[in-house]
Order: sequence, then C-alpha cells, then structure tokens
Amino acid sequence: MSLLEETLASISPVDEGLTGEAQLRLDDLTKPKGSLGRLEEFARKLVSITGTLKPKIDKKYIFTFAGDHGVAVEGVSAFPSEVTPQMVINFLRGGAGINVLARHVGAEVVVVDVGVNFDFTSLGTEAKGLKIKKVVSGTGNIKTGPAMTREETVRAIEAGIETANEYAAEGAIFGTGDMGIANTTPSSAIIAVLSGRPVEEVTGRGTGIDGEAFSRKVKVIEEAISVNTPEPTDPVDVLAKVGGAEIAAISGLVLGAAARKIPVVVDGFISTAGALIASELSREAGGYLFAAHRSVERGHAVMLERLGLKPILDLDMRLGEGTGAALAISLIEAGLKIYSEMATFSDAGVSEEN
Amino acid sequence: MSLLEETLASISPVDEGLTGEAQLRLDDLTKPKGSLGRLEEFARKLVSITGTLKPKIDKKYIFTFAGDHGVAVEGVSAFPSEVTPQMVINFLRGGAGINVLARHVGAEVVVVDVGVNFDFTSLGTEAKGLKIKKVVSGTGNIKTGPAMTREETVRAIEAGIETANEYAAEGAIFGTGDMGIANTTPSSAIIAVLSGRPVEEVTGRGTGIDGEAFSRKVKVIEEAISVNTPEPTDPVDVLAKVGGAEIAAISGLVLGAAARKIPVVVDGFISTAGALIASELSREAGGYLFAAHRSVERGHAVMLERLGLKPILDLDMRLGEGTGAALAISLIEAGLKIYSEMATFSDAGVSEEN
Repeated sequence: MSLLEETLASISPVDEGLTGEAQLRLDDLTKPKGSLGRLEEFARKLVSITGTLKPKIDKKYIFTFAGDHGVAVEGVSAFPSEVTPQMVINFLRGGAGINVLARHVGAEVVVVDVGVNFDFTSLGTEAKGLKIKKVVSGTGNIKTGPAMTREETVRAIEAGIETANEYAAEGAIFGTGDMGIANTTPSSAIIAVLSGRPVEEVTGRGTGIDGEAFSRKVKVIEEAISVNTPEPTDPVDVLAKVGGAEIAAISGLVLGAAARKIPVVVDGFISTAGALIASELSREAGGYLFAAHRSVERGHAVMLERLGLKPILDLDMRLGEGTGAALAISLIEAGLKIYSEMATFSDAGVSEEN
Repeated sequence: MSLLEETLASISPVDEGLTGEAQLRLDDLTKPKGSLGRLEEFARKLVSITGTLKPKIDKKYIFTFAGDHGVAVEGVSAFPSEVTPQMVINFLRGGAGINVLARHVGAEVVVVDVGVNFDFTSLGTEAKGLKIKKVVSGTGNIKTGPAMTREETVRAIEAGIETANEYAAEGAIFGTGDMGIANTTPSSAIIAVLSGRPVEEVTGRGTGIDGEAFSRKVKVIEEAISVNTPEPTDPVDVLAKVGGAEIAAISGLVLGAAARKIPVVVDGFISTAGALIASELSREAGGYLFAAHRSVERGHAVMLERLGLKPILDLDMRLGEGTGAALAISLIEAGLKIYSEMATFSDAGVSEEN
C-alpha cells in the first residue's frame, strides 16, 4: 500500500461523543453559559479532534509549502516567478509576514520546497533550515497541458503527509501556508472543477491584478479546464491537471494530521483549495480542520461552504504564507486556555444563575 | 477647573497627517500592497493616535471597572447582585475569563471598584491588588429614580481619568472592561436615550434571560427613561439618570487616555456605552478608540455605528470583563509588529510588482 493509501485508511472520524462532557465543564466555569461563544466551540472541537477531555497545545507549527507554476508566464500574477524563491529565502531569514506573525503567537515556521523552480542547494548555508522535498521544478503551464503527472501529484501529496508525520506529536497544532507566484490561478481552477461553478464566480484578483489581467486570468483558467478535462470525482486527477505541488502538499499535510488526530488550522484561499482536495479524498479528514479566516479572494466562501467551516477571523487579508493560520491558532489556544484554566463556580465561591 | 474639564480641554484630534507616510512604509514591505488588510489599518491607526512614525506597545493593561446596580432588584439579570463582589474576588485570584485571556496576550488586569455594594477593605489581604475608587455602594434603582447624583457621576468619570493618568506611559495600550450584575440594563438605556431608538431595538438578553424576563427588562428601561427624563445632549446627565458608576469610569478612562494619546481598545456592550458617553463629551476622543469585537448583545451595532468603529473580532462573545479587548489587543499588536519588523523589498532582495 502506498503512503497515501495507508494514510487514507487510517483516518477515523473525530470523536463527537466527548463534546457534551466538554460543554458541561465549560458551563461550570465562572461565566454565563455560552458567553464565550466561539472560544467555547474551539475548546469543544479540540476535545473531539484529539479524542481526550484534556487536550493541550504544546507546540505550534506553520508549514509553508512552496512551489512554482508554469501558468505564471500567462501574466496572471502581479509578481514575476522569481519572487517564489526570493520569498523562500526571506522566510528562512525571518523577514516575511509569516515570520513576524508566527513569532507573535509563539509558532515555528517550517518552510518546505515541493516545487520551486530554483535549486536551493546551490545557496549552501543560506538555505539552511529549508526542508527540500522537491517533486517538480515548477509545474507545467495548465493553460496548455497538465500541471504534473499523476505520479508526481501523489508524491507531492505524500511530501505533505511525510511532513505531518515528522512533526506529529501529542499537543501539536498545525497551521498551513503557501508560497507560489500565480497559485491563486490553480486554486480557482480546483474550486471551479469541484463545485461546477463558473470560473468567474470563483476567481479573484490574487496579489492585485487589474481589470484586463483579471479577464485574462479567468480565460486562462477556463482554457486550462477545457484543455485538461480534469475528472471532478477524482481529486488526484484534478490536482494533476490544474493544481500545483504546494497545493497537493497542503492536502497531504491535512491527511497526515487527520490520521494522527492533530488539529489543522487552514490558512486562506490556496490552503483551503488543498484542504478541499483532502476532504474529497477523505470525508473524515474535514473534521480535523479549523478555517483561519475569510480571505478577500473570491471563491474562498464557496470552498468554506463546501467544507462546512466558518472562518475565525475576517481581517481583509489575502497574503497567504500561513499568516491567517498563525493569528487563528492564537485564538484557538485562547479557547483551550478558557476551558483548562478558568475557575469553576464552586472553586471560586460564585453564585450560579437563578 | 475640575479634572474632567481639564482633561476635556487637553484632548486634541489624532494626527491623520502621518498615516500616508506610514502606508508608504507598509507598501515597501515584502508583501503585495494592502494584502494584510486590517493589520495594516491597525498600524496606521497607532501611528495617528501616538503621533509618531515609530509607535510601540510595551505595556498592555485591561482595566476592569466594577459597580453594582440598584435596578438588579427588578429581575433584569440571570444572576444575583452578590455575584459582582464575588467576581471581583475571582478577578483578584486570577480565575476569571479576563484573567485567562489577559495572561494569554501578556496583558495586566487592573480591577477598580468604583461602585460595588460591598466593603472590600473588610477582606484584608484577600482584596490585595484591588484599586478602590468607590463613588457609590451600588447605584439607585433607575426604574424609580436616578442612578447617581450629578456630582457622584462626575467623580465616577474622574475615577476613570485618574486610572488612565496613573497608568499612562509611552508604549502603553489600554483595554476597557466591566463587571456589574444588571449593567446591560443601564447600557441599553444610554444608547436608547442617545440614539432615540426604541428600547426594544437596543436591548439584549444580557447574561442569558428568557422571554418573560426580557420583556420585563425592556419595560424597566422604558420606565427608567420616562421617570428620569435624561437630557440626550448632556452625557453627564444621561449617565447620572440611567447609567452606572463603572460605565462612567470607562468613559473617564477613554477621556484620560485620549488626553495622553494612548490607544484604547473598547470591549463589548457595556464598555461601548462608556466609550459613547466619552465621545459625546469630546468628539476628538473617538479617534483614539479601537472596537474589540462585535458583541452578541443587541444594540451594540447601533453604538458602533454611532462611534464610526468597525469591530476587530466577531466570536459570538458576550461576557464583558474586558475579554474581547484582551484578544483584540493581541491583533493590534500583530499589526504593529508587521509594520515594525517585516523586511522591505530592497532589504530582502525581493522583486517588486510588475
């Protein structure tokens, strides 16, 4: 059995049976019942994901998967492809948005090259700290052919599973992240194929393209779908035909985490495309997910609805990298601390409701 | 001149002139322009509030003002009045929701008794750490008469100003909080008077009262307004007639902070009632405010609209104490760190937008 097959076979549903007991504890804390709203929901969900009434968060990781996209030559992004490896170096030096926000919430950033069109080993010590699990050096241009072969796609998914397995531990929480110039294009293609919605409805302005470039982006995605004819009921085929290596790896991270009962905080648009693929491969995997935030990117709401997830934050962000996941992890942790650290009515000698 | 008059006279508008330069810096950071959305807005706002291009956050305080309400005898709350002092003790011991969330974000909780109907000095060392600035031992029942005299009201506002002055320092950020059984009732009365909206539209279920108690609460507020005839153009009169000591103190904290150019993160429904009074006393004070979150409590949206503030979080919370402010402070701090710590395009050697 392949790593992917093994992982899919070992995912079981989250344990909803414990949430009632968790709520009883929440209701015994010195506050009106339910008055901490979604913080209480986060605590209950951590209980159901980990399968224990005493979950903990000891170690927070943001995994930023990087890959290049052949479709960038079509002018679908405001930035040139060389920015992908440049930003990887920026991540390793600690100067990017995700580094700042991960430090703020006490999370570690793990950068994984699964498909960047650049040989980081040539940089020597400058690329120290980068995990190299390269499957392709940039994908093919999906406007004219598939992004990857099916075999490459499975390997990219497995790069994510391997990453999950390497960092899996009791008390761990994972956040997803991405870096890849032009990667909103394959992400929109994925949701268009899976949902059957018109491309225009699920395509946004990415890093900030104007009206003409936006129309071109929509046409490129429409052509990618008509040229490649991805099969909507076969998520690996969708990834191979119109996806990307980092999106595949994110889906693998989700599957690997679900198999180990580790909560995954899904960042924005690109990460949610990966999470959606994971949940199409395994319905049970969806139970292990938190949606970090509502991205500005069009199409994100369609994905979240399909996943049945309500975003935690809505701060008009559209950077990716895992920035939304970092901020949301801190709020989930706040919910767990409420559950674990607050005094009960009897402990504190506070009178209960009439 | 009284402390209140002095403070009002020394509030100047925030310095909007610096925000353009702050945005130039934000646009030079290694991310697509504007892609960190409201985090960038928070950084710009800190610049305009502090009047410096290099604002910092060194010290985070949550001020939880406590007071009792005579109107509690009308059965408008799910909890008995004795819970106010019990929760004050819980705050001092560190077991309440605000303690957990303040610890999570690295903030200090300062508990101030401005109107609790309990003599904390009788507890000796058990009440250590409590700031006592008591103006009343519980307000009068607003259903039948005024909450406080005008003089008491000014003293309660000044208790908040004094608190701001005691903790004011460069790099400080303040969060507001409240504790007072039945205090959604005066808060709804305040917004009904100031906005002229029907009481029912701005009244919520507080700690969790049912249909019958809710109807009673609406009637009590309507009667409080018709018996006391507060003058909508005189915010001190509104506070005196249908307000409360902790609400007055929160308004004073806002005024004191604005006079010292210190940002204030306004918690939920009760705190926003206080902030609204402050902004009616000084239009300029409103510029120093962040709205922490969207409370579940009806009427909160009406207040925020009047203040021109968009809440940072929306987590279905309705606890008060400063819990929303604590969480929001951490997101504002995240915005500042983005502004201060991210690498620029030239520093990082990253290509800019085409």
